[in-house]
Parts: sequence; C-alpha cells; structure tokens
Amino acid sequence: MTIITMTTDFGEADWFAGTMRGVILGIAPYATVLDITHGIPAGDIRAGAFALAASFRFFPRHTIHLAVVDPGVGSRRRAIAVQTEDYVFIAPDNGLLAWSLRHEQVKAVHSLANERYFLRPVSRTFHGRDIFAPSAAHLARGVPLSDFGPRVSRMVPLPWPEPVRTGDIVRGEVLYIDRFGNAVTNIEVAQLASLKPTPLQVCWRPGHCCPMAECYSAVARGRPLALGGSSGMVEIAINGGNAAEGLELCVGSRITLRPA
Amino acid sequence: MTIITMTTDFGEADWFAGTMRGVILGIAPYATVLDITHGIPAGDIRAGAFALAASFRFFPRHTIHLAVVDPGVGSRRRAIAVQTEDYVFIAPDNGLLAWSLRHEQVKAVHSLANERYFLRPVSRTFHGRDIFAPSAAHLARGVPLSDFGPRVSRMVPLPWPEPVRTGDIVRGEVLYIDRFGNAVTNIEVAQLASLKPTPLQVCWRPGHCCPMAECYSAVARGRPLALGGSSGMVEIAINGGNAAEGLELCVGSRITLRPA
Amino acid sequence: MTIITMTTDFGEADWFAGTMRGVILGIAPYATVLDITHGIPAGDIRAGAFALAASFRFFPRHTIHLAVVDPGVGSRRRAIAVQTEDYVFIAPDNGLLAWSLRHEQVKAVHSLANERYFLRPVSRTFHGRDIFAPSAAHLARGVPLSDFGPRVSRMVPLPWPEPVRTGDIVRGEVLYIDRFGNAVTNIEVAQLASLKPTPLQVCWRPGHCCPMAECYSAVARGRPLALGGSSGMVEIAINGGNAAEGLELCVGSRITLRPA
Repeated sequence: MTIITMTTDFGEADWFAGTMRGVILGIAPYATVLDITHGIPAGDIRAGAFALAASFRFFPRHTIHLAVVDPGVGSRRRAIAVQTEDYVFIAPDNGLLAWSLRHEQVKAVHSLANERYFLRPVSRTFHGRDIFAPSAAHLARGVPLSDFGPRVSRMVPLPWPEPVRTGDIVRGEVLYIDRFGNAVTNIEVAQLASLKPTPLQVCWRPGHCCPMAECYSAVARGRPLALGGSSGMVEIAINGGNAAEGLELCVGSRITLRPA
Repeated sequence: MTIITMTTDFGEADWFAGTMRGVILGIAPYATVLDITHGIPAGDIRAGAFALAASFRFFPRHTIHLAVVDPGVGSRRRAIAVQTEDYVFIAPDNGLLAWSLRHEQVKAVHSLANERYFLRPVSRTFHGRDIFAPSAAHLARGVPLSDFGPRVSRMVPLPWPEPVRTGDIVRGEVLYIDRFGNAVTNIEVAQLASLKPTPLQVCWRPGHCCPMAECYSAVARGRPLALGGSSGMVEIAINGGNAAEGLELCVGSRITLRPA
Repeated sequence: MTIITMTTDFGEADWFAGTMRGVILGIAPYATVLDITHGIPAGDIRAGAFALAASFRFFPRHTIHLAVVDPGVGSRRRAIAVQTEDYVFIAPDNGLLAWSLRHEQVKAVHSLANERYFLRPVSRTFHGRDIFAPSAAHLARGVPLSDFGPRVSRMVPLPWPEPVRTGDIVRGEVLYIDRFGNAVTNIEVAQLASLKPTPLQVCWRPGHCCPMAECYSAVARGRPLALGGSSGMVEIAINGGNAAEGLELCVGSRITLRPA
C-alpha cells in the first residue's frame, strides 16, 4: 500500500479533486489517496507551500505528496518530482515545494515530461488530472523517478521570509490564517530559546500587544495571546475567539516579538 | 479492517484533518479513516454532540468514533475513550459524547493518559494530531482500553434539552440548522405517538405556524412545514427553500408543537 | 475492490455524506468510497448533472456512480440504477443522470424498489442514506441489477441546452461556474473545428468580448479570455482572476462565439 496525499486549491465544490482520485485508482488500484486539503485559496502558492510544510512529516515514510496550486497551468512552467530521504513530492515547479524542502535532504529532482505517464489528450487547464495524478499513480506502482523525465538542476525558489532580529526584538509577519482565525507567524518557536528568558509579548500595532502564553486558556476568554502553535511557529490567537477578525490581522501583517 | 471515523471542527481549508489521517495510517496502516464531518462550527460542542449522535449508529460494529471539538485544548481537561456495546468513542471530556451515549450502554471509560500512545512532543494546540489520532490508531491495532489510562468514573455532562409537555402542547427549541436550512428541533418523532391524533402544527412565533406533514412535497413549493426528519427529530423546513433563512430560525429558537 | 463514487448536494458541514460512507462499508466492507463532490448547490439538478458528466469517465471500469441531488425526496419520484457499457449509475429519476448518459450506451435501467436492500425504516427525507447508499453497496457485493426492481422503460429527461449556430455565429449559455470563477459554457470544443479557422472571440454582452486563446497565460494577467476547458467545453476565464465576478457572469448568461 502506497499513500498518495493531495494538497490543492481545487476546492470541494466541483469535481476536480474527485476526478484526480479516480485517475489515481484507475492506474494504481492499491494506492490510498488521502486529502491534506483542497482548500488552499485559488492560486495562492505561499499558502499551499505553508500547508504542505506544516503537514507532510506526519505521513508514513514513502508517502507520495502530490501538490497542485498551479496558476501557470498550460504555460511552459515545468512539472517536477522530488525524491527526499523519506518522501516523493510531485508538483508544478513554481515554489510550491520550497518550504517543505527547506530542511529536507533532496536526493533527486526530475521533470515530469514523459507523456507515456500522462492522460491523453492533455488539457490546457487541468494538469492535476492529466499530468500530476497519473504520474503520481505510476510512481506508486514502482516506475522509477528517472523514467519520468530529465534531471532538474535548479527549482524555482520561494524565499522563506526570515524574521529579523535586532537585539531582543524579533520582527516578523503573519504567514497564514487558519479556520479558527489564528494568525500563524514566520517566527519559529525554537528561536525563542535564544532570547532572554523574560516574559515576552507580541505586538501587531503600536500599543497593541499580547503576552506569550502556554495555551489558549492561560488568558481570559476573549483575550488575545501568542503561543507556540502546532506547526512549530508562534501564533497569535484569541482564547475562544477569532484573532484575525478581532485584531484585524491578515497574511502579511507585520508583528514584533519583544520583552514585555 | 477497523473503521475510524472523524467528527471535528477543524474544517477542510487547513491541513488539520489531513494530518490526522496521516498520523492514523502511520500507526495503523490497515485502518480505514472515514470523515463524518469536519464542518462543526469552531468550538461548538453542542453541534458536534448532535452530529455524532445523529450518525454514529450507521457505522459497522467495532467502529472507533473519534470526535474532536476541543475549545479547552491545552488546559487540564481530560481526554477519554468510552467503550459501549458496539463502538469505542474517543474525545475530549467536555460533553461532546454525551448525546451519543444517552441511549447506549457504557461498558468502560478510560482517560487517555499513557504518553506511550501520543506523538512526541505533544503540542499545546493540536491534541487531535498528537493525542486523539494516535490513541485511536493504537486502539485499532488492538491495544486494550485499560492500557491508555485509569478508569474514569464520571464524565463531564452535556444536559439534553428535554422538551416540556403541558397537556397537548410540547415546547421545544431548535438544536441544529443543516446545510439545507432545515431547523432540527429537540422533539423526538417517537414522542408524537402519545399526542392526540389530531392534525398538529409547529409554531415558531405567535401567529407563525406550519402543519406537520409527511414529506417536503406535501406542501406547495416555498411553503413551510414540519416533519419527522432523518435523525428522528421533528424538523421545520420549507419545500424547495431554506427554513432558517426564510423563517429567521436559529439554534436556540423556541418552538411549540400543538394541535392545529 | 469495487469503487463507489458519490456526487451529492449534502455539503460537508453536516453528517449526511459521512453517514452514507458508514452505511456502504457496513454492507460492502471491501468497497472503496470516493467523493466526486458533495458541494452541488442544494437541489440544483443541472449542476449535479454537469459535475457527474464532467468526471465519471475518469474512474475505472465497473465503478458504481452514486448521485443524489434529490429535491423530490419522499415524494413518488423513482429511484433508478442504470447499467452502461462501463459503469452503473444510481440516482433519483429526476434527470440527474441525463447528461452523463448522452453519449453512453444504456444496457438496462431498473428501479430501486426492493425493500430488502433498503435500511429500515426508510426516512422521508434522507433516501441517500436509506435507499441509495445501501442499494449501491449491495450492487457492489454482486446482487444483480434485476433484483432491485422492475425494468424502467423511460427515464425523466433533462434536455441538453444545445447551442444554436447561425452561419459563423454560435449562440450558447453559461452552464456552470467553478470555484475559480471560470464560466463553463454549453459549446463543445469539438464544435469549433467546423467553424472558419479565423480568430474567434466570445461575447457576453454587446461590446464585451474576449479572444479564444490556448491557455490562461496567453493573455495578460487580469484580462479575460475564452479557451477549451478540461471538461471539453468552451470556458470564459480571467488570467489570474475570477471571470464570474469580474464579468458578472452567472449560470444561464447568454454568450456568443463569433469571428473576431
């Protein structure tokens, strides 16, 4: 049994994700197709990159991670497959895999160019169905990576927005808003260890700060807090509420972490 | 093959439910993970309790029902596993299971406290991934319930809002609004048998009543009706329309059932 | 292994689709249940018919396609199973299958009338759970089609809105809006071959036209275009944008295809 995950912006309202499931099981009947999410905002490569980076490690070794957020579909952008120590990733070569590969050891990258593994005819608008899904399924059946196309020496990058540290102050930004309205930042929890062990606070506008705390219920209901989230990043939340709405935070909002 | 169902408020937009699938199959590769829903409104324990109570009996015996609506995540609330005649339920101990267990014979309740069955480290915000999913998967692999933690003598209750009967009038409330806008009440269809067999009506505001009928099309298109719904409760609906919007009903709206 | 797909308007917020999964696997434990979509707008038979027609061919032979968009549930409308060369379709007899069957060779049509294959009691509002899902599961287990009920000689039609050609001008309409805001029309890409090989344009209001192009990126970002979509139909799109919102297109909007 091979697991193939899907991370896309196809939504659940149409037949797009469902059709990919059908294509995969038609080629690889013993694969297990698992959705990570189809709810990435349309064409939002950064949101897709973040979602995949936050989740891919929780799948068993040898899982094939198929990711399709593909605003350049039908143009000359490449399709690629990336072999790491534990996984294979399949995606358009547009930066979508970059944040997942930041700490991974890449063993090989090949383009998906062998039409033998495509559905025919290939549409101009739905390579998820016609190129990515069938390639993933053939890979699950044991076709070696090198059969799919030539080696790729350099992938399209997606720069990771490193937070900037000045003394005891770390300047970062909001990277992702989840369905609970939690605002996930680009500051890694692990980075906090090097700061002075004083109480810390996170500020999102002059005079608007909240304390770093251990869990939601460490502050009163309806009050904001920052905490180490499950993706390993500092998050801004409201206990029992929606921080993005309540604090008017959105992706790209600048925040600072500083001694209280 | 063991079935593990999931009922959560994690939504489909992020990677939360998908990550739980990966964790489960990493531990129990032969389990089948089925979604009941991830669309419970954020933190709404009553909606989650109702959704699970309306659906759990339709799964095969020995299904493990995993439910996570967990506004107290990271606090000291317990995690529990409940063995009944036919199923095991896994959830935070916050009332989420209460309405499913109303008519079930509970055989044993244990807390999920054995860190051997957790992912490590355990995050403060995503016990669905770190505690509930791996515990469910180990259970599916045959770990006995008693290995997960000590016996629990009393679960946190969630009182069922019993309708109040006065003579031939039953006063109840709206418990749940479904995607079609049907307003599901707390009056069980079985309770109607003890009422006088006269035509009945349901009223949601003085002078605003609709007849009890057999099916949607028993009234003209666009007209309201009440009927016995698929969850065994009296529902208020509009034939071909959305009763919640059209009649301004919401969860908690008071209604009465009375002779027409 | 038999695949059973589901195409419904039950949404993902409630327990409806999840319950059908449980019913199916309780009867046919070795079936694989795949979602095409549960996001068909409530009661919208045409949208359901289009989604199924656009996707069913991408599933392996012998797949059972279960479709439930059923505004007449509980009335006297029939439930049917349709055997074609490659698939079985199960649905209410309300036109939902019509567009999928346009180019298929129908081998047999039977009504689903044998209560032996229903859940008991049958609710008046959720035949997806009580009739369609269990019938599909029994079919997956090998029960012959003729056991489910008498042969049906004529199904309820859903006329396909043929585009109208006058000289070099083709008049059509928008049939479906997808999550990206692409407006899928009723003009088949294959029909373009018979038109003069001049540059073509699609117009949605007097003076509002866009060129037929090969792919999204053939026009500047933010500009409209028409192209052959993945379902084989001409679609109106905006490169990097949402055509339905940007051009005020909706299902039923009249469009014309003509020489530029």
